[in-house]
Amino acid sequence: MDEFDVIWHTEPSLDDPVLVEGLPGVGHVGKLAADHLVDEFETDHVATVYSEHFPPQVTVEDGVSKLASAEFHAVDADGTDLLVLTGDQQAGDGPGHYRLTTTFLDVAEECGCETAYALGGVPTGELIEEYGVVGAVSEASLVGPLEDAGVEFRDDEPAGGVVGVSGLILGLGGRRGFEAACLMGETSGYLVDPKSARAVLDVLCAKLGFEVDYESLDERADEMEEVMEKMQEMQQQSTQTPDDDLRYIG
Amino acid sequence: MDEFDVIWHTEPSLDDPVLVEGLPGVGHVGKLAADHLVDEFETDHVATVYSEHFPPQVTVEDGVSKLASAEFHAVDADGTDLLVLTGDQQAGDGPGHYRLTTTFLDVAEECGCETAYALGGVPTGELIEEYGVVGAVSEASLVGPLEDAGVEFRDDEPAGGVVGVSGLILGLGGRRGFEAACLMGETSGYLVDPKSARAVLDVLCAKLGFEVDYESLDERADEMEEVMEKMQEMQQQSTQTPDDDLRYIG
Amino acid sequence: MDEFDVIWHTEPSLDDPVLVEGLPGVGHVGKLAADHLVDEFETDHVATVYSEHFPPQVTVEDGVSKLASAEFHAVDADGTDLLVLTGDQQAGDGPGHYRLTTTFLDVAEECGCETAYALGGVPTGELIEEYGVVGAVSEASLVGPLEDAGVEFRDDEPAGGVVGVSGLILGLGGRRGFEAACLMGETSGYLVDPKSARAVLDVLCAKLGFEVDYESLDERADEMEEVMEKMQEMQQQSTQTPDDDLRYIG
Amino acid sequence: MDEFDVIWHTEPSLDDPVLVEGLPGVGHVGKLAADHLVDEFETDHVATVYSEHFPPQVTVEDGVSKLASAEFHAVDADGTDLLVLTGDQQAGDGPGHYRLTTTFLDVAEECGCETAYALGGVPTGELIEEYGVVGAVSEASLVGPLEDAGVEFRDDEPAGGVVGVSGLILGLGGRRGFEAACLMGETSGYLVDPKSARAVLDVLCAKLGFEVDYESLDERADEMEEVMEKMQEMQQQSTQTPDDDLRYIG
Repeated sequence: MDEFDVIWHTEPSLDDPVLVEGLPGVGHVGKLAADHLVDEFETDHVATVYSEHFPPQVTVEDGVSKLASAEFHAVDADGTDLLVLTGDQQAGDGPGHYRLTTTFLDVAEECGCETAYALGGVPTGELIEEYGVVGAVSEASLVGPLEDAGVEFRDDEPAGGVVGVSGLILGLGGRRGFEAACLMGETSGYLVDPKSARAVLDVLCAKLGFEVDYESLDERADEMEEVMEKMQEMQQQSTQTPDDDLRYIG
Repeated sequence: MDEFDVIWHTEPSLDDPVLVEGLPGVGHVGKLAADHLVDEFETDHVATVYSEHFPPQVTVEDGVSKLASAEFHAVDADGTDLLVLTGDQQAGDGPGHYRLTTTFLDVAEECGCETAYALGGVPTGELIEEYGVVGAVSEASLVGPLEDAGVEFRDDEPAGGVVGVSGLILGLGGRRGFEAACLMGETSGYLVDPKSARAVLDVLCAKLGFEVDYESLDERADEMEEVMEKMQEMQQQSTQTPDDDLRYIG
Repeated sequence: MDEFDVIWHTEPSLDDPVLVEGLPGVGHVGKLAADHLVDEFETDHVATVYSEHFPPQVTVEDGVSKLASAEFHAVDADGTDLLVLTGDQQAGDGPGHYRLTTTFLDVAEECGCETAYALGGVPTGELIEEYGVVGAVSEASLVGPLEDAGVEFRDDEPAGGVVGVSGLILGLGGRRGFEAACLMGETSGYLVDPKSARAVLDVLCAKLGFEVDYESLDERADEMEEVMEKMQEMQQQSTQTPDDDLRYIG
Repeated sequence: MDEFDVIWHTEPSLDDPVLVEGLPGVGHVGKLAADHLVDEFETDHVATVYSEHFPPQVTVEDGVSKLASAEFHAVDADGTDLLVLTGDQQAGDGPGHYRLTTTFLDVAEECGCETAYALGGVPTGELIEEYGVVGAVSEASLVGPLEDAGVEFRDDEPAGGVVGVSGLILGLGGRRGFEAACLMGETSGYLVDPKSARAVLDVLCAKLGFEVDYESLDERADEMEEVMEKMQEMQQQSTQTPDDDLRYIG
């Protein structure tokens, strides 16, 4: 295998497509949101990217293994063309993040994308009542239109900047001429958070002018709610402090 | 030294050989099983692979050092030709895992292998009564025949996928056209586990149609049993909780 | 993106310029000092260096992202020409430190620099009353003139040597013929320390013969003082020991 | 700077020279021993090796910095020609260890060495009364003559093999035709240990047929003794357990 192996499954003909990235990260918010778009609309599997910069790992489903990879799907979102990038892994090393993102942007450019949305979560450290969506953009002119779509831009957030592929889609994408924005749903940071994913999708829909059915995402949210209630019961029955019991569950 | 150094000791003439990999991992199950095959049958030492992606280390036996490496042995298993891959180390870095496995598959291909079994363990976190063997395969058509040989395929296992060389023999091997399967013996994860290795070999024998003598492996299992009993006695005599005393022992 | 991307914004015409480096490090002393020079004098933004050896990260200010980078500014310090190197990150890997510093020295050489000052902090582990500045140089002949400017050279300090870009500006710069010195302000190591930055700038001004207004730096120091007083109050009100509360705050 | 930079200071004319390596490691035994040889005999500074695989660091002595490097000295040990390799750092990454050692062996070969001794320590975890020296060799024929010189070869030691440059001098050196041995002095592992270094040198002298004055090494050992006694007094005066106070001191 070469450093990168881009397998094209189909040559998509897309109309002014928008790159939407959702790889694993805080609360799996970005991944949940991107996967939901792939699940809800008609899609074409465009390309698969393998790389030695992914962890040396296969995932297994029904006994069948799948090598660490990222997938591009052409998604017809109610007439809006999306190129959705999903996967189960981030890069395993620093330079690998730069090189993977460069490869991703190459594919997106080849598909005609000039705009990119990186979806993700921003950890608040506490349970969320109202799910805000925090934004970061590649150029100042993008702030206004996103505020109109409900995105919040805050002075000191996200405090540590944006790391990983999402950050580099802003940084490397912006340098290559992409209009790039990162939409980060607030999330506790402790749990896989379908509600935060829905908040992010709400903003994306408002901005791009399409609608998506949330039923399956809401069901997933209900399941998480049940998990949390069970955990809280267990906490009350035990002598341990709540903090000791909170683990990352999905 | 180059990035990889493949030393061929003999050009094997093998009849439809099967690659069997057993590098160190959970419970050393895969390594114990592969080493047992090399010990029990007539073998030819085919090739040694050195690489800067192995840890910078020599092992020492009777004062004589051996540079970190992987070894290929041609094994005549009762008429079935195996190419057994063993060694004392996994790769030390992520891209190294990909490149090492690619080198291993190159050697196997050169020897005529089209089928590969990666042997390993799957940690259960508790002591095992009945040793199941969990499978993962490179393509769905391999599931049925392995189930007939006693392999279990479970919905959510192994939970974290398969990592390291074993995982990549599935992932990279499958992409290159190998029919690849990973056989993972259940094991507590705390101890070197000859019983789990025997369970894995049972399945391999059933699938490939050969038999192997387990006497030396059973002796090793008895030794481990004694070690464990001693440990349990020590635990009962001490005020510490059992968990504090359980260390990885082999 | 290549391994390094040096973007030249202007071709500076500098008179015997001096490289002054201030990247993040202990107490952010070097960064505070270098940023202060850029803030207080007339400057030209000379060049930006991007690299896959920086962490895969963007910083965000007012919602607009900035890819990890280092910046060179030509600074007219009261008639003394400085080439100030600042940024928000160090390299993320060992060889990356060597390669980044080599790139930095290439830029400095191209701008005509033959002298280099790496600014930083040296941790003392306790709160500082009198801020000393400890020096390290690329050749013994530089010790005397710096002692005249108030720099202290001590037998066993800094105990662990100098690490990161500052250390390599001494090491690699010295090998390339730069007269290089590292000026390290004493600092507790627990807090961002504008007072230590002022002590370092005092020495630099004395050595190079220019003056700089400290008002904004002193204000920042006052803010830190308030933060610390608040923390001490909180400590006295709590039952925790002071050590448990001291975190790195800036 | 290139990946490696070998600076030749003189072209040594050596008679059947023996490579002696002593880089930092357990108890600094190897480094103390190698440095002692350089200090006690007439030497020529043969070559310096710089590399991006060393940590990004300078050491500082009397204010003057020295870039991380390894040094080759030609040592006339009472008529026996040694090529002594010393330095302050090991490699910072796995492949770097392989590449550095390859570079070291290139230099040694260029100087005519066909024999190599890697000096080091083997941690026992307890204070030593009688300092044994444990050996490991590149080929079995070297065991006998070293046993005659007082080296012990034990079944299961060193348990984890030999890591770092010393291990690779055995592993890579042996593969290139060097007769290579590693001499490891027993040492607690907690303290810099001049007595263990002396034990290693005793063996080396016996094997190669030269003598060295130990006065300065014995003085250093006395200093360490005083440090230890002070520590023990402090331990008895404090309520802490001895284990908590034992830190690596040199």
